[in-house]
Amino acid sequence: MADSEALPSLAGDPVAVEALLRAVFGVVVDEAIQKGTSVSQKVCEWKEPEELKQLLDLELRSQGESQKQILERCRAVIRYSVKTGHPRFFNQLFSGLDPHALAGRIITESLNTSQYTYEIAPVFVLMEEEVLRKLRALVGWSSGDGIFCPGGSISNMYAVNLARYQRYPDCKQRGLRTLPPLALFTSKECHYSIQKGAAFLGLGTDSVRVVKADERGKMVPEDLERQIGMAEAEGAVPFLVSATSGTTVLGAFDPLEAIADVCQRHGLWLHVDAAWGGSVLLSQTHRHLLDGIQRADSVAWNPHKLLAAGLQCSALLLQDTSQDKFYDVALDTGDKVVQCGRRVDCLKLWLMWKAQGDQGLERRIDQAFVLARYLVEEMKKREGFELVMEPEFVNVCFWFVPPSLRGKQESPDYHERLSKVAPVLKERMVKEGSMMIGYQPHGTRGNFFRVVVANSALTCADMDFLLNELERLGQDL
Amino acid sequence: MADSEALPSLAGDPVAVEALLRAVFGVVVDEAIQKGTSVSQKVCEWKEPEELKQLLDLELRSQGESQKQILERCRAVIRYSVKTGHPRFFNQLFSGLDPHALAGRIITESLNTSQYTYEIAPVFVLMEEEVLRKLRALVGWSSGDGIFCPGGSISNMYAVNLARYQRYPDCKQRGLRTLPPLALFTSKECHYSIQKGAAFLGLGTDSVRVVKADERGKMVPEDLERQIGMAEAEGAVPFLVSATSGTTVLGAFDPLEAIADVCQRHGLWLHVDAAWGGSVLLSQTHRHLLDGIQRADSVAWNPHKLLAAGLQCSALLLQDTSQDKFYDVALDTGDKVVQCGRRVDCLKLWLMWKAQGDQGLERRIDQAFVLARYLVEEMKKREGFELVMEPEFVNVCFWFVPPSLRGKQESPDYHERLSKVAPVLKERMVKEGSMMIGYQPHGTRGNFFRVVVANSALTCADMDFLLNELERLGQDL
Repeated sequence: MADSEALPSLAGDPVAVEALLRAVFGVVVDEAIQKGTSVSQKVCEWKEPEELKQLLDLELRSQGESQKQILERCRAVIRYSVKTGHPRFFNQLFSGLDPHALAGRIITESLNTSQYTYEIAPVFVLMEEEVLRKLRALVGWSSGDGIFCPGGSISNMYAVNLARYQRYPDCKQRGLRTLPPLALFTSKECHYSIQKGAAFLGLGTDSVRVVKADERGKMVPEDLERQIGMAEAEGAVPFLVSATSGTTVLGAFDPLEAIADVCQRHGLWLHVDAAWGGSVLLSQTHRHLLDGIQRADSVAWNPHKLLAAGLQCSALLLQDTSQDKFYDVALDTGDKVVQCGRRVDCLKLWLMWKAQGDQGLERRIDQAFVLARYLVEEMKKREGFELVMEPEFVNVCFWFVPPSLRGKQESPDYHERLSKVAPVLKERMVKEGSMMIGYQPHGTRGNFFRVVVANSALTCADMDFLLNELERLGQDL
Repeated sequence: MADSEALPSLAGDPVAVEALLRAVFGVVVDEAIQKGTSVSQKVCEWKEPEELKQLLDLELRSQGESQKQILERCRAVIRYSVKTGHPRFFNQLFSGLDPHALAGRIITESLNTSQYTYEIAPVFVLMEEEVLRKLRALVGWSSGDGIFCPGGSISNMYAVNLARYQRYPDCKQRGLRTLPPLALFTSKECHYSIQKGAAFLGLGTDSVRVVKADERGKMVPEDLERQIGMAEAEGAVPFLVSATSGTTVLGAFDPLEAIADVCQRHGLWLHVDAAWGGSVLLSQTHRHLLDGIQRADSVAWNPHKLLAAGLQCSALLLQDTSQDKFYDVALDTGDKVVQCGRRVDCLKLWLMWKAQGDQGLERRIDQAFVLARYLVEEMKKREGFELVMEPEFVNVCFWFVPPSLRGKQESPDYHERLSKVAPVLKERMVKEGSMMIGYQPHGTRGNFFRVVVANSALTCADMDFLLNELERLGQDL
């Protein structure tokens, strides 16, 4: 009977499966890996949404398509996608294509398992443990716990959840209604996930007390102390401080030692959101930026950012040196997460680390700092660039001052006109596909560019290109 | 100067990058795809944790390794991992390897972007919209909203968060403290993520009212009505019912029409956790199991389960036919998620759907039902198998009754001895690597096997093998 046969899909035909996958892999190598990382190619092929919809023919229909059509679709998907591995992709806190990490990701996908138990993920259960141990060692902890989470926002939420559970174990069962109002503290430069997390966890955004940051973007410990006092005076119970190592826009590092002192005095959980800056711990030269991180109770660190391990790779690390687990293992039997199935996020990082060693990864971090410094010094030599501040990390924030605005700093509409430059240049660079740099207003400052120097394939020539290209794109403004 | 050159890693050498990736891909094709799905090969290669640690040499060291060593590591990772694509992997609610979905996953990894904005994910922003539209259409909605989440547990949490926000928009800012005690309702057969989610969201597990299920595992609407009355009498405010379409163990479908009637009478948000059973909507023959789902406010559906799209692929769908968005877009500017960066989870499903069409996917679902039925009927012909119940889905739950226990049903220790059989057989099958089937106790029932008939490469011959293999493994018991 027909039902006893495998379905007439490729799944029953190993030769056809292999042929399809080899053909797709060929397209990936040519289009995404070779062209996608070549400076002779565009970083993006801009299309307006309506035109792109037509080109992609996204509709899902009743009938399936031929292998030839499917391969065409694969090509189109890659062609019109942004090449985040391209050296001229300066837009996000990740850039570049690490071949070992990509190899790890392809193996992960081919094995398609879930990180539940040793039974169905024996290799990855042991590997995750080892990778987390290594990350903790870099933080400065010889023991502890941790987990890979689906992104830094969720890592931060876990930390908040654990801190409130440690303070009020009852709240897992009874909820927040029976508790006094809780207060957590973070600076105005922190990632917006702290606010979102407070809402999601039922604390409400009002529970987030915003601490002042100085002109460099660093939390002011004296204001933290003051805010704690104010919260207590209002009847709230402070329970957590979230410091940031590497803020999103300015790349600022909060003064962890001074913040840890405050936390110690008040008995507060110290969480460090090092999603962006955590990888600096690999650099003997620069890890002082995170001095004091070993005093944290929890650390969020995303190797998918500066280490280019690939999305998603976000670790929540816990100091947890007590004998007893401080989270409730009764409900979370065996796993420590609010997820059930959980992707394997350790292999890509492990394989890259095996190939590079600590030393190779350290060189990358150091090189990123060197190139960011080179970019800053070159900007100072050119009249069209005005730094927002001297960077301490690899976020380089600056205004491009077009010819018509140079020397007009005293003009009353200077800042308003300057603020309109970045959006125009961004549109031009994206439509040409020559590079991608993000911009944003920030506090009282009008729109400025933020170049993220993260791609390990970058050279000084790419920095020169960036400056020349901005001058070229903005010469008529 | 040395710093102006690219680092001496592969990243600067396109030829070496391509050679490495082609070599790794060759290993993936041979080991994970060909051998990993061949019934002449083992489904797993069992090692005790300590031995496996030695074999894998997991430690991350200062020095990097050669390409030859890295390729050996890739081989070892695959060798000792469980082959979830193998036809004899019956262990989880996912099994099989769809080549088009895998192709989509490899492209996703090679493009490594985040689903934030049209600017950096133009193809995937449009594609996600289209895929979600298609899934909503299958639910029965011509409009609405949705998002891909990192797994069904988080999809369920989103639903609870949205429902409480709809009822009390203030709680986002002010938290749960100022609200009356809230109550949500789900059956005792529901997924444990509802309890976990209530804890994580600050509601507390006490807010979850457990509704009775009948002997088939289906929620009893009369008891739901009764529980709502009880909660109200205690001063709690009911706000959500989470019904399940396809429970984890028994594969039961809650009676959605009757539950929707109750929700309508009481003005409650109806969430349907169809993480497992949602894919049945593709089948004209079987979609009646979800009759009434179009009356839900939200639906969680994981195409990474029965459709084998690959982990993770979990959609939260929202009916949301109102003009105004019912979630607060002020805080979540532009995105609708508690994540910041978010993986691309739509391409693998889209590409598979393009290749198969609705028709191809429908055939798979129907075939899984046919094979589950075949397995049940064959069990009835053999004396060593006792069904827990007639399945209505592709979860086939049964005891293997070994020769020494046959005809001893009246013996006082029968159930205790029967309960010990599945763990012994599981150990034997895993150590031989011949197949993997999960088991669990459930309610008052002792350990029984749950075969999940999900792999689209299965045939009747695999079902026969499963029965023969259990008889062989248990012949001496």
